[in-house]
Amino acid sequence: MTHFRLRHLPLDTLREHVIVIHERAVRHGNLGLHPLDRARVFGIDRQSGVQREITGVLNVCSDGLLEADEIGLSDEAFHDLGLPDGAEVRASLAVAPLSVDLVRAKLRGRHLGRRDFDAILTDVAARRYSRVELSMFVLGCAFQKFDLSELTDFTLAMIATGEQLTFGGPIVADKHCIGGVPGNRTTMILVPILAELGLKVPKTSSRAITSPAGTGDTMAVLADVALSPDRLYRVVEEVGGCIAWGGALELAPADDILITVERPMEIDTEARMVASILAKKKTAGATHVLIDIPVGSSAKVKTPEFAEHLSGLFMAVGERIGLRLEIATTQALGPIGYGIGPRLEALDVLSVLRCEPGAPADLREKSLMLAGRLLEMTGVEPASRGYEAARRTLDSGAALKRFDRIVDAQGRREMPAPAPWRRNFASGQAGMIAQIDCWQISRIAKRAGAPSNASAGVKLYKSVGDTVMRGEPIFEIHAESDAQLQAALEYANSVRRLLRYAEDS
Amino acid sequence: MTHFRLRHLPLDTLREHVIVIHERAVRHGNLGLHPLDRARVFGIDRQSGVQREITGVLNVCSDGLLEADEIGLSDEAFHDLGLPDGAEVRASLAVAPLSVDLVRAKLRGRHLGRRDFDAILTDVAARRYSRVELSMFVLGCAFQKFDLSELTDFTLAMIATGEQLTFGGPIVADKHCIGGVPGNRTTMILVPILAELGLKVPKTSSRAITSPAGTGDTMAVLADVALSPDRLYRVVEEVGGCIAWGGALELAPADDILITVERPMEIDTEARMVASILAKKKTAGATHVLIDIPVGSSAKVKTPEFAEHLSGLFMAVGERIGLRLEIATTQALGPIGYGIGPRLEALDVLSVLRCEPGAPADLREKSLMLAGRLLEMTGVEPASRGYEAARRTLDSGAALKRFDRIVDAQGRREMPAPAPWRRNFASGQAGMIAQIDCWQISRIAKRAGAPSNASAGVKLYKSVGDTVMRGEPIFEIHAESDAQLQAALEYANSVRRLLRYAEDS
Repeated sequence: MTHFRLRHLPLDTLREHVIVIHERAVRHGNLGLHPLDRARVFGIDRQSGVQREITGVLNVCSDGLLEADEIGLSDEAFHDLGLPDGAEVRASLAVAPLSVDLVRAKLRGRHLGRRDFDAILTDVAARRYSRVELSMFVLGCAFQKFDLSELTDFTLAMIATGEQLTFGGPIVADKHCIGGVPGNRTTMILVPILAELGLKVPKTSSRAITSPAGTGDTMAVLADVALSPDRLYRVVEEVGGCIAWGGALELAPADDILITVERPMEIDTEARMVASILAKKKTAGATHVLIDIPVGSSAKVKTPEFAEHLSGLFMAVGERIGLRLEIATTQALGPIGYGIGPRLEALDVLSVLRCEPGAPADLREKSLMLAGRLLEMTGVEPASRGYEAARRTLDSGAALKRFDRIVDAQGRREMPAPAPWRRNFASGQAGMIAQIDCWQISRIAKRAGAPSNASAGVKLYKSVGDTVMRGEPIFEIHAESDAQLQAALEYANSVRRLLRYAEDS
Repeated sequence: MTHFRLRHLPLDTLREHVIVIHERAVRHGNLGLHPLDRARVFGIDRQSGVQREITGVLNVCSDGLLEADEIGLSDEAFHDLGLPDGAEVRASLAVAPLSVDLVRAKLRGRHLGRRDFDAILTDVAARRYSRVELSMFVLGCAFQKFDLSELTDFTLAMIATGEQLTFGGPIVADKHCIGGVPGNRTTMILVPILAELGLKVPKTSSRAITSPAGTGDTMAVLADVALSPDRLYRVVEEVGGCIAWGGALELAPADDILITVERPMEIDTEARMVASILAKKKTAGATHVLIDIPVGSSAKVKTPEFAEHLSGLFMAVGERIGLRLEIATTQALGPIGYGIGPRLEALDVLSVLRCEPGAPADLREKSLMLAGRLLEMTGVEPASRGYEAARRTLDSGAALKRFDRIVDAQGRREMPAPAPWRRNFASGQAGMIAQIDCWQISRIAKRAGAPSNASAGVKLYKSVGDTVMRGEPIFEIHAESDAQLQAALEYANSVRRLLRYAEDS
C-alpha cells in the first residue's frame, strides 16, 4: 500500500469530508479508487501511538494542486483526523457504513427501532454519509410514515448524537414555531419580555431551512449568534436569555447535517419536523416549550385537521422524552409584519420593541399572546393574566432595554445598509387583499437573495385586510444585484395566485 | 459587484461543477454567498464578445489555495465556462433551476409530460442540478410510478439530451441484460459470434451501477473501453463489433449523470431501468435489441409476474420510440460462471471463448442461446437454427479469433495480476446447493473492492446444483488489501441465507 504525506487543503466543504489524491497516485498506486468513491485515510498519531482515521469522498486532482505523494484533506476532514501537516498516512477504498442498508430498508417500508436509528444517526453525525445517502434518509422520512414508537426512537437517537446544555433551576422556557410563515419573528420580542419577568430563556434557533430568513439569520443582523456553550451560559447568566444559533453548539449534530440536504430540497416532513424540533429543545436544556403551529392554505400546515394531528404527535413524543409542551395553533392568511428577509425582519422587530406608531400590529399581538401563554404555563402569571403582564413589559420599554442588553451580551453588530437594487410590484386589480401566498412570497424573497444576502428580501406595503387600487404598489423587492432583482421580479410576474382579493372565489 | 481572476483548479469532481472563492472575498465582497450555495460565474469571451457562464456548487477556501481576488473552477466547470486562465470574471448567487419545482411536484405525485421531462433533463445534462437535487429526482422515479405516456416521454427526453450514433445498413444488433446476476458476462461472448456471422454489433455498456462489475468494467481488464465516437466507428468498421463504455460517448448524458447518484444508492427503479436502457440503445444506433430479464428470488426481478409486467413496459416503450425488441426471460438461481469482479469475470469469458474443458457451462449456454435469438430475430438464421449457428462459430475458434481482433482494435491491455489477499469461505453444512443469493454475494465482492479494484471479487468453487461437505470451501475472496479482505469476510459471516441447500425449507 502506498504512503502519502498529509496536506491540509484550506477548503470549507460544509460538513462533508473531502479527500484529494493526485491522478498519478490513483492510476499507479493500485488503490483501486475512482472519483467520488468513499475513501479512508489513516495514520498513527506519534504522540499517543493511536491510529486515527477518517472516511470521506474522493476527488482526484492533477498537477498544480498536490504532488503525487501527497493526500489533501478539506478543513473538517483535516481537523477530524487530527494529525499534523506532513504526517505519514495511508489511504484505501472504504465501503458505505452498514447502516445505509437500514435506510434502504426504511425506503422500502421497514419499521425501524431505537438501535437502528442509533446506528444511522451515529454514522451521520460522524460524517460517514455522503450527500446522496443523506438525501435517501431524508426522503425515506418523507415517504414512509413513522409511527409513534419510531418517532420517539428517532428523536431519542437524535438527542444522543450530541451535547446537552443544562441550566440550574426547575424551569427553562422555550418557544418554537414550525415555520412556513414569513416574517414571523416573535422570538426576538418574546425572549426579552420573558427574561425581564424572571424566566430563563436560552433560545437557540436554526438558520433558515426552507424560508427566506430564520430567527438565527435575523438576529445575526443585529448581534453575534454563533455562541460557544461557554459564552451562551455566560450570556444567559448575565441577562436571563439569548437568541443564539444552534448550529455552533453541537446540539443534536446529526440534525444539522440532515438540514444541509433538506435546505436545497425545500421539503418539510412530519417526522423530521417533530424529531428535529423536540431533539433541539431537549438538548438545549428546555423544560417548558410552547410550539406555534400556523395554519393556512399557503402555510406548511394547510388544515385544522392536520394541525390537530401534528399537535398530537408533538404532545405524545414530548411526554415520552420528558418535555412539558403546549401547542398554539395560529391563523396564517399571509406573512406577519412588513419585512421578509433578515434585515427587513429585524427592522420590524425593533419597531415593535420600540413601540413605534407604525410598528406591525400583527407581529406585536402574536408575540404578546405567545409570551402570555408561556408566562401562564410556567406559573409566572396566573391563568388569563399572562398577556397583560407581557403587554406592560413591552409598553414600558423594559423589553427593549432587555433586548439591548442581550444584543450587547452576545456582541452587537452594525446593521447592514439597505439593499441597493429595489423595485415596486404593483397590484393587478383593485380590491381588498384577502390572502398573500406565504410560499410564493418567500420564493420571491429567496430569489432576491435572502437569507444569504442579509439586506435582500421583500418589503410589504400592504397586509391582508388592506384595500388597494389597481396599479398601487403592494411590495418592494430588495436585492444586492440587478440580476437578482430581475430574477425575483420575473418569478413574481410568473406566479399565479400570489394574492387573493376578497371578491375572488 | 466584485471582479475576480479566473483560475483553473485541477480537480476532477466527476460531473459536478465546483466553484471555489476565498473566504475574505465571500465576507467582504457583499456577494451574499455561503458554502454549498449555488453560484454563477460569468465573463465575456474576448474573441467572440459573447458572455459565457456556468453555475456550480460553492466551496470556500482560506489562504494557501487561492488569492482573495481569484475564483477557482474544477476541471469540468473550467472547461464548460471556456474562458482562459486569468480571465476577468464575476460571480453571483444563483437559484435552483425552475425545473426542480417539477421534481418536487413529481415527488408529490404529479403526472409529468414531455416538456416537463425536457426541462428537467436539459438542466441535468447541463450540470445545473446539485447531487441532492439529482437524488430527489431519482427517488421521485422510485416512489411515484410512471404510466406509459410518462415513461415514453421520459425516454424521448433522455434521448434528446445527447448525441446519436448512426451506422449504415438496416440492421444494427444489440443485447442488454437488466442486471442483478453477478458474472453474467454473455455480451463479451455474443458480440464476437454475431460479428463473425456478419451482423453489426456496436455494443456500448455501462460501468457497474449497483453490481460488482459491469460489462464495461470487465472488458476494461482486457482492452481500452473509453472510445470516442470516431474510434468506435473505426473499430466497428474494421471488425464488425465492439464492447465499449458508453460513458465516453455522450449518449444520453443526463442518464450518466443520474447514474452518479444511483450507484451509491444501490436502488434500481422500474422507470429508470426502462428509460435508461432504451435511451442508451436508441442513441447507440441499435435497431434490433434483445433484452435479458433474469428472474430469481435474489435477482432484481423476483417473480415471473413482475418479469411479465416489465417486458410489457419495454415492448410498449420500444415500439413508441422505434426499436424492434425481443425479451428473453431467464432463470437466476445464483451467479453465472465462477468469477465475480472484473478480472475474475474476464477469466471466465476467455475460458468459454477458448472452449476450455473447465469453462463455465452456464455462461456458455446462456451466451449461445441469446446469440441464437438475435441471429433469428435479425433474419441471419431461420427460426430454430440460431443456436446451432452460434455454437459452431464458438466451437470452431472463430469467435475467439474475432474477439482477439476486437480487443486489438480497441487497444489491448495487460491483464492485471491476481489480487494478493485471498481467503476461502467454507460451507457451514453438508448438502446440495439449491441457491446462491445474488445480492449478498455481490455485496461481498464489492466489500472486497470490486469493481474499483479490478482484481478484487469472489471466485466460486461451487455452483447451484453442486453437493458440498461441511467445511468444504465454497468460494474464495480476492482483495487488494488485508483490510478489504477482512471487511468482505466479516460481511460474509454476518449474512444469513447466503446459500440455500436442497433440504432447506
